[in-house]
Amino acid sequence: MHPLIECVPNFSEGRDLARIDALESAIAGVPGTVILDRTSDRDHHRSVITFAGDPQPVVEAALRAVSLAAQLIDLNHHRGVHPRLGALDVLPFVPLAGATLEDCVALAHRAGHRIWNELGIPVYFYEAAALRPDRLQLEHVRRGQFEGLREAVLLDETKQPDLGGPVLHPTAGAVIVGARKVLIAYNIDLATPDIEVAKQIARKIRASNGGFPAVKALGLALPSRNQVQVSMNLTDFEQTPVHVVYDEVSRLAQRYGIEIAGSELIGLLPRKAVELAFAHYLKLPRFRSGDVIEQRMEIGRSRTDV
Amino acid sequence: MHPLIECVPNFSEGRDLARIDALESAIAGVPGTVILDRTSDRDHHRSVITFAGDPQPVVEAALRAVSLAAQLIDLNHHRGVHPRLGALDVLPFVPLAGATLEDCVALAHRAGHRIWNELGIPVYFYEAAALRPDRLQLEHVRRGQFEGLREAVLLDETKQPDLGGPVLHPTAGAVIVGARKVLIAYNIDLATPDIEVAKQIARKIRASNGGFPAVKALGLALPSRNQVQVSMNLTDFEQTPVHVVYDEVSRLAQRYGIEIAGSELIGLLPRKAVELAFAHYLKLPRFRSGDVIEQRMEIGRSRTDV
Repeated sequence: MHPLIECVPNFSEGRDLARIDALESAIAGVPGTVILDRTSDRDHHRSVITFAGDPQPVVEAALRAVSLAAQLIDLNHHRGVHPRLGALDVLPFVPLAGATLEDCVALAHRAGHRIWNELGIPVYFYEAAALRPDRLQLEHVRRGQFEGLREAVLLDETKQPDLGGPVLHPTAGAVIVGARKVLIAYNIDLATPDIEVAKQIARKIRASNGGFPAVKALGLALPSRNQVQVSMNLTDFEQTPVHVVYDEVSRLAQRYGIEIAGSELIGLLPRKAVELAFAHYLKLPRFRSGDVIEQRMEIGRSRTDV
Repeated sequence: MHPLIECVPNFSEGRDLARIDALESAIAGVPGTVILDRTSDRDHHRSVITFAGDPQPVVEAALRAVSLAAQLIDLNHHRGVHPRLGALDVLPFVPLAGATLEDCVALAHRAGHRIWNELGIPVYFYEAAALRPDRLQLEHVRRGQFEGLREAVLLDETKQPDLGGPVLHPTAGAVIVGARKVLIAYNIDLATPDIEVAKQIARKIRASNGGFPAVKALGLALPSRNQVQVSMNLTDFEQTPVHVVYDEVSRLAQRYGIEIAGSELIGLLPRKAVELAFAHYLKLPRFRSGDVIEQRMEIGRSRTDV
């Protein structure tokens, strides 16, 4: 089975539909890539296009996206709520089936070198692809944004890009290239209008308050439904799986005498998260992906490819 | 997405490895088919090869298997514990992702006509592909086996094949071609040595005693593990899903104060069974296959095929 890579470029353009369409087309035009999702926000003035494929076409499509974004977007005329440093601002590579985070670090570095060498746009590496500990967090890399960093790189060597520079591209800024695990956006609705219950449960489960690792959680009100919600980002579902979070929220809610009304995924989740839950709830310790007919087919097909 | 078809030919040969290998090779040699599983039983003198693929190559591979089985196997010299009517005895077509039972009925009929027209071996249709109500059940069609039916067709028109005949093939008998839903073989182990508990639970859940539809169940002892087992065949997992059976066995066992020790799949199960359980346990009413990244990829890829 080929390693499958997801790529989630964030563009500093959330208003001009023709430009966003053109960026999507540039990606979709590379054979072997599939567009999975696209969202734009006018206030943020930002779009996110999610696509996936084998490593080679994904890197190729990422390069074309960086190139076209630099042609279409001039950060000197960009104002939005969301912080940004580049025309194509953030470029994470994410491992899916058959791929590892290490594969994605290597791809991020390969893409980064091509972005500088072929397109002349400086590159910062973040998260798993970071070359320096102070660049592990995206927020740290982007601090000061385009306008601030444009000045800072002249005064402070530690602010300069990992590749290229030392100054930023005059209109396209720099691309922040990284590798991270897949993120699952997952919400659990509680059958109560009491926002305090959702907030207390969110505090108990989130990593920042000593709860589960790789879990971000907020308690939100859902007034139209007369319910409240524990809204979560699971940033490493293998460390803290979806079903572990569900069971714990269910247990904590029961302490208040409250039931889970239902749950929802925002966007997509990887197959492995589904299979981990299946094995857990049915107490199937020996269950593996190859027990699923359709997955066995894929394994068989890729074997005949060799 | 192309409809994916599983085919599970049963051969009257379970001892001669070279012959079984040749039968497997005949199937695997058709481009577009993938062998999923193979089991042989010396006492039964019978082998089952499970394969899958798009409709066209699956039918082609089935034809080659029937042809080679007729060349290799002479039922006049075949003695085994398991009843059989043909060299290739039973040929069910099973709908997987993107396929319906109706698709498989049509394939079974197409394959049946080719078996008679091109290979000269008579055909009976059974289960969903049956043309007569007394042929819905495989056991009814096969009653009397090769030796008995060979005589019966001469005396009783109602015993004659649906296609070809009226007499059986002198060495290869007849092929019983059908369409059925995928079968999930699933066992739940109980943390007790009390076989009566397993037997009582099996009686409560199985269709034949008024339990869940499409569930066959037996209580078995597992002396080496000091446990007992509810051993099941789920013949329509969309009617009675795996998780429904698990939850009910768990509930019934708790009445005896007994826990489920674990469960196991014998062979494979379809992806949809996994997804149905996921949506159930996480109370995800809006969950669908397209929420899984890898499945979204497949949908996207097949879209670009068009």
